[in-house]
Amino acid sequence: MILALDAMGGDHAPHEPCKGAISACTEFSDLEVVLVGDENSIKKLIEETNPEVQSRLHVIHADETISMAEVPAQAIRKKRRSSMRIAMQMVHSGEVQGFVSAGNTGAIVAGGVLVAGRIKGIDRPALGVALPTPGRKTFLLDVGATVRCKAENLFQFALMGNFYSKHILGIHDPMVSLLSNGSEEIKGDETVISTRNLIKNSNLNYTGFVEGDDIPFGKTDVVVCDGFSGNILLKFAEGLGGALYSIVKEEMGHRILPKAGMLFMLPMLKDLARRLNYEQHGGTPLLGVNGAVIKAHGRSKAPAIKSALVVARNFVLQKGTENIRRELER
Amino acid sequence: MILALDAMGGDHAPHEPCKGAISACTEFSDLEVVLVGDENSIKKLIEETNPEVQSRLHVIHADETISMAEVPAQAIRKKRRSSMRIAMQMVHSGEVQGFVSAGNTGAIVAGGVLVAGRIKGIDRPALGVALPTPGRKTFLLDVGATVRCKAENLFQFALMGNFYSKHILGIHDPMVSLLSNGSEEIKGDETVISTRNLIKNSNLNYTGFVEGDDIPFGKTDVVVCDGFSGNILLKFAEGLGGALYSIVKEEMGHRILPKAGMLFMLPMLKDLARRLNYEQHGGTPLLGVNGAVIKAHGRSKAPAIKSALVVARNFVLQKGTENIRRELER
Repeated sequence: MILALDAMGGDHAPHEPCKGAISACTEFSDLEVVLVGDENSIKKLIEETNPEVQSRLHVIHADETISMAEVPAQAIRKKRRSSMRIAMQMVHSGEVQGFVSAGNTGAIVAGGVLVAGRIKGIDRPALGVALPTPGRKTFLLDVGATVRCKAENLFQFALMGNFYSKHILGIHDPMVSLLSNGSEEIKGDETVISTRNLIKNSNLNYTGFVEGDDIPFGKTDVVVCDGFSGNILLKFAEGLGGALYSIVKEEMGHRILPKAGMLFMLPMLKDLARRLNYEQHGGTPLLGVNGAVIKAHGRSKAPAIKSALVVARNFVLQKGTENIRRELER
Repeated sequence: MILALDAMGGDHAPHEPCKGAISACTEFSDLEVVLVGDENSIKKLIEETNPEVQSRLHVIHADETISMAEVPAQAIRKKRRSSMRIAMQMVHSGEVQGFVSAGNTGAIVAGGVLVAGRIKGIDRPALGVALPTPGRKTFLLDVGATVRCKAENLFQFALMGNFYSKHILGIHDPMVSLLSNGSEEIKGDETVISTRNLIKNSNLNYTGFVEGDDIPFGKTDVVVCDGFSGNILLKFAEGLGGALYSIVKEEMGHRILPKAGMLFMLPMLKDLARRLNYEQHGGTPLLGVNGAVIKAHGRSKAPAIKSALVVARNFVLQKGTENIRRELER
């Protein structure tokens, strides 16, 4: 299997992406990675790798990069020699089966749609995140690819989420739910209500509306929402993780507690913060495009890049694109 | 000042609402409360109160109640002898200056609009919550009164939020922000973008788009969003608080830590959970209706009911309705 990696994407490029690729190829002997980016820098970073692993690392030169601040669709259209655009073209042509990038999220989405291309039958793509909830993984989509959605878009997200939960997260007959502002049938806006009617008539294991408070308990396997809602939820959790230390310190003021208690608290708060930074857990798949396109967090270091490559590999092994296409035809 | 209280609303009615009213009237000698509900039950609950305080507690009989499960607008229209409907009529006629209820949220909103009436110039009401963020209170609205909004609605929410932050939460020149799926100007859906243009041309201290992760840090004073987004955020935080114990227990598995550590953790987790249960902090004002209409959490006990009465009292003292009307005229 051959995957492309954006060697120029993310805060720690090109060092960490290259290290991540080496690490993934070392673990998986069926894997080849095409590193796309500045050829000289990349070659230096991989030259001391074990020769067998090195023989599975390829370099494609790209002399432009797309920065985090650029307007996504514009950048993808104009920067034809950027690492992101070149890699997406390789996905489109089938030279590689998937692509991982820690770069500009909007550009990954735009590149996925405009260059790699959508799966036939999918109108809009979705970014999904597997949230670690007690005892399981809850798959939330969309978290930012499609800001506002029609019912048909949300229904397609439900189908793709069902596939991902079943085949990638390994959940038997996933419970599929719609995020709403109340669990009662009378709640929801027009779009959510129309989506419910579409899902009810499908063969998905639909379990109804879920509210925000159902998510952290892991009451369902797939939570479907538009990119606006998913994004604010995901970011809110991340912010909460980051603010926990200040919040706990404020609360400590109200409570007499030995300072030693803080020694126990600190590592726990760090664990919690990491846990709430949902995007850091492996990669975030861009569902609905041809190929295994996986976004890694912008702050990804080598282990996170490797983890995103592993997600892409699983997606290819599980025939993600073909299976989503088949699901749509039913 | 005279306020009405729904003696039949919430999980602990009528006992806790009555106790809350006694407690508020004991503390504030300028306060009179009309308890609306089953006369016999209420009279029994207040008969042993200090006579001076008792002289400021009035009872109005209502022989119907609106339950949590009822369809709000329907219930308000049909149940003309319900405690909620009778109290809202008293707000409308000016017999009372405000109303507190721990009952069905939708019915409070419907009653506010259909019975108490909207402030002239306000098209849709908003429920706001003051979130405790490090070192301040961040006011989030709407959290569920108006599911989807037009730009004009969100702009009116911004004006009302600005009033509330300044006069009730005591923040000088509040920073007003719009919740969006990214802080860059190119983010947001059409409605959010149109709202931004309206706010920019006003004299509000507009500070731009905020993302979900800015909220827990208290980076702004007023966060404006539609009721769908506000509701899922609020509920998500509440759920996260509730799930913290299970999450921490799972994390503990990965870490060797003396069991004694848990002794420090438990009270802290409870504090955190309470803190994230934002709706429990005082009352949630329904802004945009004539009068100080305050929703208390359904699980409110006496202290929370008292706290909601205090919020209503402050709202009246700060001439909430008149000031919002004046703000709109500018």
